[in-house]
Amino acid sequence: MNFTTIQQINNLEQWVKEALKIKKNPLKNKKLGKNKTLGMLFFNPSLRTRLSTQKAALNLGMNVIVMNFNNEGWTLEFEDGAIMNQGASEHIKEAAEVVSQYCDIIAIRAFAGLVDKEKDQAETVMSGFLKYATVPIVNMESATGHPLQSLADAITMAEHKTKHKPKVVLSWAPHPKALPQAVPNSFVEMMLLQEADFVITHPEGYELDPSITKNATIEYNQNKAFENADFIYAKNWSNFTDYGKITNSDPSWTINAEKMKLTNNAKFMHCLPVRRNVIVADEVLDSNNAIVIEQANNRTFAAQLVLQKILKEVRS
Amino acid sequence: MNFTTIQQINNLEQWVKEALKIKKNPLKNKKLGKNKTLGMLFFNPSLRTRLSTQKAALNLGMNVIVMNFNNEGWTLEFEDGAIMNQGASEHIKEAAEVVSQYCDIIAIRAFAGLVDKEKDQAETVMSGFLKYATVPIVNMESATGHPLQSLADAITMAEHKTKHKPKVVLSWAPHPKALPQAVPNSFVEMMLLQEADFVITHPEGYELDPSITKNATIEYNQNKAFENADFIYAKNWSNFTDYGKITNSDPSWTINAEKMKLTNNAKFMHCLPVRRNVIVADEVLDSNNAIVIEQANNRTFAAQLVLQKILKEVRS
Amino acid sequence: MNFTTIQQINNLEQWVKEALKIKKNPLKNKKLGKNKTLGMLFFNPSLRTRLSTQKAALNLGMNVIVMNFNNEGWTLEFEDGAIMNQGASEHIKEAAEVVSQYCDIIAIRAFAGLVDKEKDQAETVMSGFLKYATVPIVNMESATGHPLQSLADAITMAEHKTKHKPKVVLSWAPHPKALPQAVPNSFVEMMLLQEADFVITHPEGYELDPSITKNATIEYNQNKAFENADFIYAKNWSNFTDYGKITNSDPSWTINAEKMKLTNNAKFMHCLPVRRNVIVADEVLDSNNAIVIEQANNRTFAAQLVLQKILKEVRS
Repeated sequence: MNFTTIQQINNLEQWVKEALKIKKNPLKNKKLGKNKTLGMLFFNPSLRTRLSTQKAALNLGMNVIVMNFNNEGWTLEFEDGAIMNQGASEHIKEAAEVVSQYCDIIAIRAFAGLVDKEKDQAETVMSGFLKYATVPIVNMESATGHPLQSLADAITMAEHKTKHKPKVVLSWAPHPKALPQAVPNSFVEMMLLQEADFVITHPEGYELDPSITKNATIEYNQNKAFENADFIYAKNWSNFTDYGKITNSDPSWTINAEKMKLTNNAKFMHCLPVRRNVIVADEVLDSNNAIVIEQANNRTFAAQLVLQKILKEVRS
Repeated sequence: MNFTTIQQINNLEQWVKEALKIKKNPLKNKKLGKNKTLGMLFFNPSLRTRLSTQKAALNLGMNVIVMNFNNEGWTLEFEDGAIMNQGASEHIKEAAEVVSQYCDIIAIRAFAGLVDKEKDQAETVMSGFLKYATVPIVNMESATGHPLQSLADAITMAEHKTKHKPKVVLSWAPHPKALPQAVPNSFVEMMLLQEADFVITHPEGYELDPSITKNATIEYNQNKAFENADFIYAKNWSNFTDYGKITNSDPSWTINAEKMKLTNNAKFMHCLPVRRNVIVADEVLDSNNAIVIEQANNRTFAAQLVLQKILKEVRS
Repeated sequence: MNFTTIQQINNLEQWVKEALKIKKNPLKNKKLGKNKTLGMLFFNPSLRTRLSTQKAALNLGMNVIVMNFNNEGWTLEFEDGAIMNQGASEHIKEAAEVVSQYCDIIAIRAFAGLVDKEKDQAETVMSGFLKYATVPIVNMESATGHPLQSLADAITMAEHKTKHKPKVVLSWAPHPKALPQAVPNSFVEMMLLQEADFVITHPEGYELDPSITKNATIEYNQNKAFENADFIYAKNWSNFTDYGKITNSDPSWTINAEKMKLTNNAKFMHCLPVRRNVIVADEVLDSNNAIVIEQANNRTFAAQLVLQKILKEVRS
C-alpha cells in the first residue's frame, strides 16, 4: 500500500474515527514498527511535516532516517533514456531501488516547480519513486497533492463540527510568492469524499484543476461564499491556467474579522505556514475560532494512521 | 521549567554535585525520558552543543528530533502585528505553538546577530519561543547567554579546584571575527553564583554589559590579573559599547606559556572552538594544564542534568 | 580497531562469510550496540553510505548521530602549528578529541579535493581524526579509499560467482566530472586479497597509483580485457598522473551490450551513483546481469560487519 493521494481513502469517516482513536492513545501500537525503518526524503523545506511524521513513526516504535536530498545526496535524473552527461549524478531508478534496500517505508516531499505545468502534473519525483521503489511510498506533499495535510484537516473538522453537514468554504487569499496548488487540491478531493455544503471561492481566473474540482460549487463573491459558513479554510495558490503566475494579489481577499462576521461563527483553518495580515488578519488568527494549531497537532495522527495501516499490511 | 539563563540556578554547588553523580552513572535514568521527545532547533552552527545535547537526551532514553531551522524550515517573523508580505513565511507564534505539539522539550540555538544591539539584547528568537511555546525551553546558546556551557565550566572547575576559593581569571583574547558576548556573559553570571577570587581582564573599552558584570573586579593589566590565578578562562568577544565591532586585535593578549608562568600553575579553559595561536598558543593548549576537552565532555552531563530536572518536573 | 583501508582485512574470505551470516539474520546482534553511539560525520554528499551505515548501526541497536560537518559545524584547520587567523574556526585536534567524548565510534566521509595531490595522498581529514580521536574510526570514503564499498563488492561477488577463480575486470569509463580514485583503489586492493584472474583496463595515461595496483595486469584494449570476463566492474576516475584532470572522455569506453557480449555472460557492477549512457548503456544496467542494486544492499552488511567487529573488540 502506498499513500499518495487522499482519493485512496475508501471510507473517510472510518479513517477519521481510527485517527481519533490513535490520538487518545498514541503509544498503543509502540511495538508495531519495531525494527522497521522509515526513510524521509526531503526535496523541499518542511517544519510540520518533518516533525509530525517523525513523531508518528516514533510513536509506532519505528527507526527514522531523515535525508535532505538536495544538499546531502546526489542530483537526480528523472528522464528515461537520458544521456547523463549534465548536472544529474544519479537516475531515479537506482536511487529509488537503492533506498528501498534500507527502508521499509519511504516518505517523500517534492513540491511543484511551478515552471513546467506538464512536469508538475506528471509528478516527476513521486512517480519516479512509485515506479521504481520496491517498498511503500508516502506522499509528504508532492507537486499536486498533500494528502497527509487533508487527512489532518478532516480529523480536525470532525472534532469541531456541530452538525452533520456543515458549510465548508475554501477561500483563496493573496500571497507575495507563487505557491503550488497541492494543498487546495487535496482539500477539495477530501471534501468531495464526505457530505458537506462545500464552496470554493477565489477571484475569476484562479480556478483550480477542473479534473479535481469536478462539480464543486465555485463562488467568485467571497462575501457571499462566507455567509453561514461553519468552516473557513484559507489558502493561497498561484494561477493554474496561467501556470504558476501571480495574476492577482488583491488585498480585499485577506480574511479579516469583518468577513468572519458573515459566517456562522465559523472555525478558521489554514495548513500553515501562514502569512499574517496578508492571508489572514491577526484578529482572526488570534481568535478562539482559529484551529490552525490543532490542525498541526493532528498531522501526527494522520501520519500515524497511514504508517500504521502500511505496517499492518506489510506484516500480514 | 525552562532553562534559559545560568541565573536560574538557585544552588550551583548542589547542581554541580548532581551533575557529577550523573557523570559517574550516565545511564541510571535511562527510563526517565522514555517516549519523550527533545526537539533541537538550530539557527546557527554547532558541534559540541549538537552532539552533547543529543548524547544527554539519548542517555535519558529520549527521542531526539534535530532540525536546522534556516535551511530545512521556513524563515520566521518575530514582530507582532507584522504584515508578512516580505521574506518571512511563518510567524514565531505559529512556529513555537506547532513545535510544542510534537516535542516535550524544545532546545534552541540562536546567536547574536551583532548588528542591532537592541534586538540582540531583546533575545528575539529565545523570547519568541518562551512567549509562545507551551513546553519547556532550553537555551543552547542565545544572543546574550550560553548557560549549558557555563554549567559545564562550573562542573569542570569543581573537578579541578584544589582550594575552596580559587582565583579565576576570565581573560579576553584577540580573534579575527566579531564574536558574541554570550559565553563570557554566562561565565561571569556563573562565577558570581559562587565564592571565588574572580577577576575579568580585557583591554580598556571592551567592558561587558555592566548589568551582568555588576561589581566584579576588572583588571586592564592582563599580566597582573594572571598573578597567582588557579584558572585562566580565555575567550574573545566583540566590543559591547561600540556594539559588535572589533576595536582591538592586539596580539599581546594571546595567552602563551610566559603568561601562564605568572599563574599558580593554573588550569587553562576555553569553551571551544578555539583559534590556535591567536587566542592561545599551542604550547598552552597542548600542555597538561589545558582542560578544554574535559569541559567539552562535561557538556553532556550539564545538558543531562537540565533535561533530567525538566523531565522530573514534567512527570510530577 | 579502526577500519580505514580494505588492506586491514587479514582474511577476506572469512569476512565475507561472516557478512553473509549477518545478511541472513541482521537483527541477531541487536543488543551488541545498546547504549553505544555511532557519530557519522559527512564532509561530502552521500546516499548509500549515509543510509546503509545508519541501517547497520540500527540493526545493532546503536544510537546514531549524523552531522553534515561543512554546513552544520565549524570549518576545520588541519595543519599543526597554524596561526588560525583565517577561515578555519577549529583545529582537527580539538574537533577529534571532542567528538570522541560523545561517540563510541566515529565514521567519516571526506573526499579527495583533486587539486592538491600531496594533500589528498596524505588523507588530511582521515589522518587527522586517526591521530587525535580516542575512539575507533571508520572510513566512509576518504581521499584515497572506500573500503566499505569494496567489502560490499566482495560480498556481492561471492554471492554471484560460479567458479573459484573468476575473471574480474575493472574497467574505466568516461564521465563529465573529475572523480576521485578512492573506489577503484579499494577495489584493486580488495581484488589483490583474493584468488582471481584480475584485469584493469583503462586508456593509456589513466594508470592508478602504482603503489596500489602493484603487479596487477593492466590491459589498454578494453575489448580484449572483456573477453571471457565473469564480472565487469565499471568506474570512472580522473587522471592520477596529471592529477585530478580529465584528459580523456572517449565515449567508445562506455560499456554497452556489444561489449558485454565479449564476456562470459558477465555480471555488471558499479558502486553507484552511475551516469546512465555515459558510464554504461541502459541496455546493460537494465539487464538481468546488472547486480548494482545488490551491491548497494550489501553495503548494509559490510558496514554492520565492521561495526560489529569494533563493538566486540570494545567490549572485550
